[in-house]
Amino acid sequence: MKREDLIASVRAAMPEKRWKHTEGVMETAVLLANRFGGDPERAELAAILHDVAKYWPTERMAETIREDGRSTDVLDYDKELWHAPAGAVAAERDYGVTDAEVLDAIRYHTSGREGMTLLEKIVWLADYIEPGRDFPGVHKIRELAEHSLERALIAAMSGTIAFLLEKGKRVYPLTVMARNDLITREVGL
Amino acid sequence: MKREDLIASVRAAMPEKRWKHTEGVMETAVLLANRFGGDPERAELAAILHDVAKYWPTERMAETIREDGRSTDVLDYDKELWHAPAGAVAAERDYGVTDAEVLDAIRYHTSGREGMTLLEKIVWLADYIEPGRDFPGVHKIRELAEHSLERALIAAMSGTIAFLLEKGKRVYPLTVMARNDLITREVGL
Repeated sequence: MKREDLIASVRAAMPEKRWKHTEGVMETAVLLANRFGGDPERAELAAILHDVAKYWPTERMAETIREDGRSTDVLDYDKELWHAPAGAVAAERDYGVTDAEVLDAIRYHTSGREGMTLLEKIVWLADYIEPGRDFPGVHKIRELAEHSLERALIAAMSGTIAFLLEKGKRVYPLTVMARNDLITREVGL
Repeated sequence: MKREDLIASVRAAMPEKRWKHTEGVMETAVLLANRFGGDPERAELAAILHDVAKYWPTERMAETIREDGRSTDVLDYDKELWHAPAGAVAAERDYGVTDAEVLDAIRYHTSGREGMTLLEKIVWLADYIEPGRDFPGVHKIRELAEHSLERALIAAMSGTIAFLLEKGKRVYPLTVMARNDLITREVGL
């Protein structure tokens, strides 16, 4: 599918506000890819598609995840997490994306996981700090992202987990393991 | 082993300050057991022994955990966690404790786990709120513990995890899963 056709199709699947967010993620993903030696084209492709399933009915997301079978444990956690693995399936099935790293960058863009690839890190962080994001602490993460993708991710994931703790919500263990793994690689055991 | 002999032996294995803490945990564990329908005698036994391995050399803890084989994943996380599974082995091997629930209450007294028994909950919380504990937020946990063991545990585990996030330390996934499980049982999915 041509870039313009892909953009038009994904844009039609979401409210304009969410498309503006997606454009921010595209821009930031390309910027981070250039900054940290990633592939800007693949980063942009994952960014375009990362929220493609965001406005699906909940039951369609759940069904897609169950059919796919790879991320079914996410169904025991917050529904906010579901659009990521559902979106990866949509990217492959409906948009013909075959690049496994691009698909994984979509699949893990909200949870993260142990052993994240460079592309996964770029898309996760771009989603968190794109210019439209405005929440306490986002400036600090943007500053960290000037120099270290990993340190920015550790801080961002800490913020995500702390938010869930405060709200009394359950925490998806994969995010904790992603953060643990980044800390181990950054500062050792 | 008679209660007095057990107490004398465990007391000799730690500095006096830590023994004072242990007495606080004994008292609180008995109180919580009476409050929430647990067995005060078993709660006190687990409390007496919960920190028995706290002052072992690190390598002895690690070796004991490796030999035992049940909680080896803890060796990838903070050393502060190691005395709990090492203590459970010591309770069984050196003090002849055969009550599996008492041993598990010692084993999981710092991490918690999914599906905690009443005794595990009592000992975990007693260790957190015994009268000698004084840190921001402990009063709130004591208040919650007046009425709900589970709500007090959720708040206490949230505090523990938040502390590790702030310190940039890794979080043992079992604690996150323990908290998730308690939330699911308390408030549903």
